[in-house]
Amino acid sequence: MAKLIALYKQPEDKAAFDEHYFNTHAPITKKIPGLKEMNVTKFVGTPMGKESDYYLMCEMVYESHNALKAGLKSDEGKASGKDLMSFAGSLVTLMIGEDVDE
Amino acid sequence: MAKLIALYKQPEDKAAFDEHYFNTHAPITKKIPGLKEMNVTKFVGTPMGKESDYYLMCEMVYESHNALKAGLKSDEGKASGKDLMSFAGSLVTLMIGEDVDE
Repeated sequence: MAKLIALYKQPEDKAAFDEHYFNTHAPITKKIPGLKEMNVTKFVGTPMGKESDYYLMCEMVYESHNALKAGLKSDEGKASGKDLMSFAGSLVTLMIGEDVDE
Repeated sequence: MAKLIALYKQPEDKAAFDEHYFNTHAPITKKIPGLKEMNVTKFVGTPMGKESDYYLMCEMVYESHNALKAGLKSDEGKASGKDLMSFAGSLVTLMIGEDVDE
C-alpha cells in the first residue's frame, strides 16, 4: 500500500475552505483512477489544549507507488492538483508514504 | 472515533531514531489503555520528488475523545509521553483529530 498525505495548515476562512474542500475538491479527487480509500481527519487541537498547526489531513490510499504515480498523472489527478492549487496552494503539504508493520 | 496524530520531522540520525522508535517507543505506547489501533506511516518523499518535511507519522485511534484523554492521563500514557520527549521532543508535533465522513 502507498499513501498520498495532504496536510492543510489552518485556513484564514474555515467556512470557505470547508465549502470548497468538501463540495468541490473531494468529489474531483475521488475520481482519480486507482484511488482505493480516502480518509479525511479534522484536527481539533493539541493534547496541551492549543490550536494545532494543521487544520485537516487527507489520506489517499493506493495499491502501490506505481498506482499512486499513475493516478496523479491521469487527467483526473491533474484536475485535482489544479483545483488544489487554486484554493489551497499556500496551505497544503503533500507527502508520499507507506505503511510500516511494527 | 478520535485520533492522536504524531508527526515527526526528519531526524538527523534515521537509524538511531528507528531503533528507539520501533524497539522502545512503540512497545511502550501500545500499552496505553483504550488504544484501539496504531498505524505507522513512513514518508518516502513528495510528489515532486523531494524529501518530505516529515519522516514518520503515527495515528493512534481511540473510541472517543474521552477515551483518548483518559489514555494520555494513564500511567502508560505518561510513560509514553516521557519517552517521547526523551528521544524526539524537538521533532514531534502532536495533534488530536476526528474522522470526517464526506
